[in-house]
Amino acid sequence: MTELVVGADVGGTSTRVAVADLDGHVLAVAAGGPGNPNLVGTAGSAAEIRATVRRALQDLPGPVRGVVIGLAGGSRAAGDPAFLPAAVPGPSGVPAALVSDLAVGFSSATSAAEGCMVIAGTGAVAGRISGDDLHRRRDGWGYLLGDRGSGFWLGRAAVRSTLAALDEERPLSALHTAVLADADAEDYLGLVEASYAHPPTWLARFAPLVSRHADDDPVAGAIADAAADLLAETLAGLDPRPGEPVVLGGSVLATPGPVRDRFAARVPPGLALLSAESGLVGATWIALRRLGRASEARHARLVATLATAPHR
Amino acid sequence: MTELVVGADVGGTSTRVAVADLDGHVLAVAAGGPGNPNLVGTAGSAAEIRATVRRALQDLPGPVRGVVIGLAGGSRAAGDPAFLPAAVPGPSGVPAALVSDLAVGFSSATSAAEGCMVIAGTGAVAGRISGDDLHRRRDGWGYLLGDRGSGFWLGRAAVRSTLAALDEERPLSALHTAVLADADAEDYLGLVEASYAHPPTWLARFAPLVSRHADDDPVAGAIADAAADLLAETLAGLDPRPGEPVVLGGSVLATPGPVRDRFAARVPPGLALLSAESGLVGATWIALRRLGRASEARHARLVATLATAPHR
Repeated sequence: MTELVVGADVGGTSTRVAVADLDGHVLAVAAGGPGNPNLVGTAGSAAEIRATVRRALQDLPGPVRGVVIGLAGGSRAAGDPAFLPAAVPGPSGVPAALVSDLAVGFSSATSAAEGCMVIAGTGAVAGRISGDDLHRRRDGWGYLLGDRGSGFWLGRAAVRSTLAALDEERPLSALHTAVLADADAEDYLGLVEASYAHPPTWLARFAPLVSRHADDDPVAGAIADAAADLLAETLAGLDPRPGEPVVLGGSVLATPGPVRDRFAARVPPGLALLSAESGLVGATWIALRRLGRASEARHARLVATLATAPHR
Repeated sequence: MTELVVGADVGGTSTRVAVADLDGHVLAVAAGGPGNPNLVGTAGSAAEIRATVRRALQDLPGPVRGVVIGLAGGSRAAGDPAFLPAAVPGPSGVPAALVSDLAVGFSSATSAAEGCMVIAGTGAVAGRISGDDLHRRRDGWGYLLGDRGSGFWLGRAAVRSTLAALDEERPLSALHTAVLADADAEDYLGLVEASYAHPPTWLARFAPLVSRHADDDPVAGAIADAAADLLAETLAGLDPRPGEPVVLGGSVLATPGPVRDRFAARVPPGLALLSAESGLVGATWIALRRLGRASEARHARLVATLATAPHR
């Protein structure tokens, strides 16, 4: 029987699980519903993970040698000793660990044990990774308090700039016109009303407009510059060292575009900027490393075989 | 029979109405429930105003010569021709007008027809007043988009500063310690969780801590400085002219304290800074002015007699 490891990537949208052998071949993946404990509660999260792990392990009789669950860093679940036993099915005694989503994201892109992870999607958070552990987290405070340079931040800056131009009766820039069209608003009051008619993170919808216009509209360019400044400042708080990997995640930083380009121009030279891959690679990789099965070849194999593994 | 004017000050907390004679003696006041159309709908707002005006006019048989209703500037009610007839009871033909809450606030403090009004309470908004009209409104975009320098802004800045100190493991300042105690939080995660467990404007609760510590804690002082910078910038957008009145409203600016002091030090010399009085004075005063009954003596009489008028 093939010995197995299980990696789980638990988020607000879905709970995803991969099963791999000890050589890094992904044998199966499964997806379940939202698993973030902040959204579905600690018990709900554990139940969703347990069910999704079971489904992924279906028809794979080999013994499970290790389980790694990647969970949002700000979760209280990490401090709850009942969480892990509730989340992991099967015989007790299987080594299982909860690790930060930042550690999982970092190990999705590199087999290195040490470096930095910066995520800028709807929100923004960064941390220094050392082994499985998260150190020196920065930001991740959510839309109301932080998330500086995130998609929410970019979208809100675009709306604010549009409101200021309307209030001051200045000519509208290409970005301003695009914001008004996208919000289906005709004046400042319509734009304000639309912004409050939706959940706050609705404002992130305007972030792609900033990217689209950053190179032809100085207003959009200045907003992209400011976001890149903030994200570079967030990274600087982690004291990145020359030569070490910096893994970038989230739609704003992981995909090529004006904000990523501007960010890259602002970080210290000598850093290796990588884009995050699937968190399933990171979680299964950490599970292998915890068994002493770490190698670059196995990391590459996880990436290569994840795409073609059967879905359950 | 005494000829009468009616003034209404309509807000999110209450609907207040005053009745005065044409010499500026307040004869009665009445208070009703929330009347902001953005909160209770246009029809609900009109009904609340109508009921409160009726109550204020009880036992005052004299003919009503004018009605002025002060309503939040960003309200769609101002553009709804059905609103005013629905809000004003009694025979049609009585001259009635909707005016901005900024115009009402301005005229609460001065009999001048021209000047600026800056409000910083939980939110922040400013405008140039000319007669009954609001020109060049600035900010008033709400917590999500603007309200720069407001109580919400101050409270959020205090929380952000606390989170940054905790993340970076710096020594906590007096403000940081006060924020954690007031939020009943022990660490960054507790403070973040508390902030999201309440409506966003809950953060305004921390604004008084900034004022309390502004003169002994450099961290709090810097936040008060930044708020004063933003509010002075908001006022500057109205191009205030030497000698004209600038009326300050809201808890952050209308009451003496470190933010008001810092703001006063940042505005151009020669401006007359006044504190807003009751909006009932402003609304009844505008009603008198619309009848050609404007005088400084009548303005002073409204202020003096409002406090002792019977409540209905």
